[in-house]
Amino acid sequence: MIRVGVIGYGYWGPNIVRNFMANDRAEVVTVCDKSQDALTNVRKIYPGIHVTNDADDIFSSTKIDAVAIITPVSTHFDMAKQALLNGKHVFVEKPLTATVAQAEELLELAEAKNLKIVVDHTFLFTGSVNKIKGLVDSGTLGKLYYYDSMRVNLGLLQSDINVIWDLAPHDLSIMDYIIKEKPVAFAATGKAHLNNMENIAYITAYFNNDMIAHFNLNWLSPVKIRLTLIGGEKKMVVWDDVVPDEKIKVYDKGVEVKSTKGIRNLLVSYRSGDLWVPKVEQTEALQLVVEGFVEYILNDVTPINDGHAGLRIVKMLEACNKSIENEGQMIQL
Amino acid sequence: MIRVGVIGYGYWGPNIVRNFMANDRAEVVTVCDKSQDALTNVRKIYPGIHVTNDADDIFSSTKIDAVAIITPVSTHFDMAKQALLNGKHVFVEKPLTATVAQAEELLELAEAKNLKIVVDHTFLFTGSVNKIKGLVDSGTLGKLYYYDSMRVNLGLLQSDINVIWDLAPHDLSIMDYIIKEKPVAFAATGKAHLNNMENIAYITAYFNNDMIAHFNLNWLSPVKIRLTLIGGEKKMVVWDDVVPDEKIKVYDKGVEVKSTKGIRNLLVSYRSGDLWVPKVEQTEALQLVVEGFVEYILNDVTPINDGHAGLRIVKMLEACNKSIENEGQMIQL
Amino acid sequence: MIRVGVIGYGYWGPNIVRNFMANDRAEVVTVCDKSQDALTNVRKIYPGIHVTNDADDIFSSTKIDAVAIITPVSTHFDMAKQALLNGKHVFVEKPLTATVAQAEELLELAEAKNLKIVVDHTFLFTGSVNKIKGLVDSGTLGKLYYYDSMRVNLGLLQSDINVIWDLAPHDLSIMDYIIKEKPVAFAATGKAHLNNMENIAYITAYFNNDMIAHFNLNWLSPVKIRLTLIGGEKKMVVWDDVVPDEKIKVYDKGVEVKSTKGIRNLLVSYRSGDLWVPKVEQTEALQLVVEGFVEYILNDVTPINDGHAGLRIVKMLEACNKSIENEGQMIQL
Amino acid sequence: MIRVGVIGYGYWGPNIVRNFMANDRAEVVTVCDKSQDALTNVRKIYPGIHVTNDADDIFSSTKIDAVAIITPVSTHFDMAKQALLNGKHVFVEKPLTATVAQAEELLELAEAKNLKIVVDHTFLFTGSVNKIKGLVDSGTLGKLYYYDSMRVNLGLLQSDINVIWDLAPHDLSIMDYIIKEKPVAFAATGKAHLNNMENIAYITAYFNNDMIAHFNLNWLSPVKIRLTLIGGEKKMVVWDDVVPDEKIKVYDKGVEVKSTKGIRNLLVSYRSGDLWVPKVEQTEALQLVVEGFVEYILNDVTPINDGHAGLRIVKMLEACNKSIENEGQMIQL
Repeated sequence: MIRVGVIGYGYWGPNIVRNFMANDRAEVVTVCDKSQDALTNVRKIYPGIHVTNDADDIFSSTKIDAVAIITPVSTHFDMAKQALLNGKHVFVEKPLTATVAQAEELLELAEAKNLKIVVDHTFLFTGSVNKIKGLVDSGTLGKLYYYDSMRVNLGLLQSDINVIWDLAPHDLSIMDYIIKEKPVAFAATGKAHLNNMENIAYITAYFNNDMIAHFNLNWLSPVKIRLTLIGGEKKMVVWDDVVPDEKIKVYDKGVEVKSTKGIRNLLVSYRSGDLWVPKVEQTEALQLVVEGFVEYILNDVTPINDGHAGLRIVKMLEACNKSIENEGQMIQL
Repeated sequence: MIRVGVIGYGYWGPNIVRNFMANDRAEVVTVCDKSQDALTNVRKIYPGIHVTNDADDIFSSTKIDAVAIITPVSTHFDMAKQALLNGKHVFVEKPLTATVAQAEELLELAEAKNLKIVVDHTFLFTGSVNKIKGLVDSGTLGKLYYYDSMRVNLGLLQSDINVIWDLAPHDLSIMDYIIKEKPVAFAATGKAHLNNMENIAYITAYFNNDMIAHFNLNWLSPVKIRLTLIGGEKKMVVWDDVVPDEKIKVYDKGVEVKSTKGIRNLLVSYRSGDLWVPKVEQTEALQLVVEGFVEYILNDVTPINDGHAGLRIVKMLEACNKSIENEGQMIQL
Repeated sequence: MIRVGVIGYGYWGPNIVRNFMANDRAEVVTVCDKSQDALTNVRKIYPGIHVTNDADDIFSSTKIDAVAIITPVSTHFDMAKQALLNGKHVFVEKPLTATVAQAEELLELAEAKNLKIVVDHTFLFTGSVNKIKGLVDSGTLGKLYYYDSMRVNLGLLQSDINVIWDLAPHDLSIMDYIIKEKPVAFAATGKAHLNNMENIAYITAYFNNDMIAHFNLNWLSPVKIRLTLIGGEKKMVVWDDVVPDEKIKVYDKGVEVKSTKGIRNLLVSYRSGDLWVPKVEQTEALQLVVEGFVEYILNDVTPINDGHAGLRIVKMLEACNKSIENEGQMIQL
Repeated sequence: MIRVGVIGYGYWGPNIVRNFMANDRAEVVTVCDKSQDALTNVRKIYPGIHVTNDADDIFSSTKIDAVAIITPVSTHFDMAKQALLNGKHVFVEKPLTATVAQAEELLELAEAKNLKIVVDHTFLFTGSVNKIKGLVDSGTLGKLYYYDSMRVNLGLLQSDINVIWDLAPHDLSIMDYIIKEKPVAFAATGKAHLNNMENIAYITAYFNNDMIAHFNLNWLSPVKIRLTLIGGEKKMVVWDDVVPDEKIKVYDKGVEVKSTKGIRNLLVSYRSGDLWVPKVEQTEALQLVVEGFVEYILNDVTPINDGHAGLRIVKMLEACNKSIENEGQMIQL
């Protein structure tokens, strides 16, 4: 039984606690939050869980095997480091850290002490992402042309990170998981309207082959859109993550250029066939994230969201910020 | 009565002919196309129109006052120049020309000969665009934050221009019309998958103030999306041009940052009120484009889509291409 | 070459004229309408067509082979009878006539004089309806359970018929075409809010087997909905005729009752698999209706929308009206 | 503090328990279910709640003030009667009972013993229903013409009731709450495809005035639709309860008949203005249902879902069943 201490019981923390409690091989023994209201809520629902507003109670406890860090990004590094130094496994909210250097230090520390780190890249465990990965891996889509994502809403503004660090970890980790080829460079543009953090941003990812990826991120959209288009030579996918059903559509559409002589003589063949909407598993992703963390600790089965995956995403995020600071200049990874 | 010669009777030409024929103060006297099938179609529907496959018949005709050029972009300059040199007014499909230099030469020529040029920026004449312009001009939206457009479909690939020159003239001309402030720089990324012309591209426009604009253009999308989000301090607009009704939604949504002290203490006030869907005029835009051209010629009333508007758009397009060639580098206008 | 006289050039007449003109083996020689504006419009577009406001010019003309009657329902019988008596084939807007007796008289007259009657059940010629018919005929849907249609909008109120006679011919003819079993009884309810004609009505059709059909018709809906659900034992179809694409969805969903012992022990197996959206032909249906009429006249190939089909629909409509007059009582056909 | 015993911990029971636990003036002391798994779940989440599989433990307990009955409809009467006979207030899942006679007996018993009955007509407490009621009460919609509801999905088949008794209580209770005028007669049609209970049904409700109401209910639909159209003289409402946002749309649309002389001379004026989407409260309805029950018991404030409301709905349901048994004949209430 993995005994977990959870730090942070704000927006996402309750889901973490609920899923660790529901896991057969884990239990939450302590929850830490600075807000007394949050702790009162914990006690009402889980009378058996110890509460505290001092994270050191968790780091120093000998009854705790793993720490879940569900706090602002700027605190991830210090907390994770404390946890590791105290011999505890680490489950950390995405993104792993605020800098690449921090992430690398955590990975080294974890390896030295033989401890595990996982990052809560929840989306990788959804039925939708795994269905799409299956379509890519099986060659159903053919050679990939583009990955185009839009993730906008009237967002919960963060004070310590911009919209890229808040929203892009979802899409970058999904792309990192789905597509074998890795991006080699990033260009990003954006604007900060409310404080000094960009609330709107656009990212282009370059690859060594024909692929191009793009991400539209916005905290100031009046509507919630989570739309991903994936164009392949053989099939194309539209993933609408806002609708309750029929989230993934596989289109048998495409274009083939036959000849390109002369202005009027571009011979193009358009293919437009049936559309297929595969059934998607409905299991709560976070349940699988937690199960993977437990399995990682107990049986050393490395999950897809281990610390190395977390580091890859932080590298991309850092490149994006650097590009924005340089007027959209392409930044090599 | 303005007597018009139309060159090009392919995809869009029939709409041009129909609308000139329907105008009380204009009539089409000659249609030119290289395809015999196209000319046969003209004759079947309009027995009174003369047809030819030699554009010089139009340029040299003394019975023609104006020439409508509905041909590939790479031919616009030569044709428009011929028309002007022969003393004819010019109606040209968007974009005006393939280069800024060409556009400037045409404008000078037209001015010297006191002839009129209009570019078919059709969208400026839709009820939707004018409704949005009204919202902006009246201050309903407040200070503008962003203009974010997505225009993708399984497109008719062009052989002489990339997706930017094909699709962006729509969005750039709309932005140019709606927003008083003019963009000062452009950054663009993209990829050519099928031939040497980009079929997917992303454009960011920079302004001297807080505004940012972005355009997502794609000829290889399995679905047709024409979605524009406009974020203002007071209200936000979502314009979905694919749905038959309720195209424009005005959201009373917003975020105000009250204070930014400390990580946990970002005080943000979210506003989320009613949504309003204004009724939009349904008049066919092209009918108004034609009427504006006629009025320009007959009564010297400069329309919003005159040659200068066309030149502004070509300048933006040229900057985008230059940015793509330079790995997304920001290009000053 | 079938020479056609068209009576009625209001809302639908222009489409009829355009499609007869486009047919290789037919041409419109005369158009009759009481409105001078309508005739002016005809002349502007088709200078070669003779216009008149006296229908007798068409009935008595020796140069006319067939008459297309695109006028209010209450005039169909007299006009069609005149046409037949003058030896002309008849193309009549749906529904065929205002009573069963009238329809039967026309059919007898046509047979006696060896003339053809077709009714403009346009929907039978759409790609959507034929795709659905294919799914039913091939057994893909399995045994049919229900046919449930909703056709509502802010409608063009008719003065001589209620909403059933205006809208239901579409759905009844589609059902009549798609489903082999014929309905044996009808029950209908409704209400007249604006004049003495029902503007809202609900129809249930009974069959000799398990099938049930239902139609929701409304001229006073603020939104346009054209939605048909067809439930089969093996598959289910949702046909949304308002969306531009993806109109037909085939669901692999169903329920099987395994056992029904006791309240708590209803053993039910739910099936929920992939969804399939077949590609649908986009040919304009009216073009095919016209072609079928021409083929009927020239080569005696009976179309699916012949007079007998028209009569079957009028019988159903008459039963519906009778049911409404009798408080929703079931009326045997 | 109201001490509650909950009978039934299947699909809906957990929500009932959660909401009673969250209420400041109530607590669940015992949960009864026949399934041991259900009771194990209760104990895991709420270690403090007593569990049992004998409902008599609840009826006979002196520590219980009120009983919540979340069991199949056919058991409601016996359980509620036992509860009342043992001096306990009753919270019962909809519909109140399986017959009008049962409902009337419960109401008499409750009155005699000065106990309270509420029925879980949850929808009456949603923000959407209350927004619509506000529009009706304020006269915004004007005189009402129709109430048209469609509630279909691949449903959880019940073994002791048909689709009308399962789904219609939602819509009938909403209509009963929103519209002052009461229906005077019902006509219903339907079909049972899987066992002897109708899984598809259509209901028409008649009023003494111009109003007509209709309900489309289906357990065998491949898609989930919850759509209500309400037509008024001044405004019309479309309520789509499946979409996450923008559930209620208020249309400024209508038709006015000016004159009805002659077939061609129906003078109709169509009104089509802006559309308005009011913001809707997001509070969980069940929380308000529970609060109303508590307030009813403690302070004698009669809620809108008291036993009399429950009886009215059962009367309508009984009339519908009687109509189906009589081939759709209109049944007076």
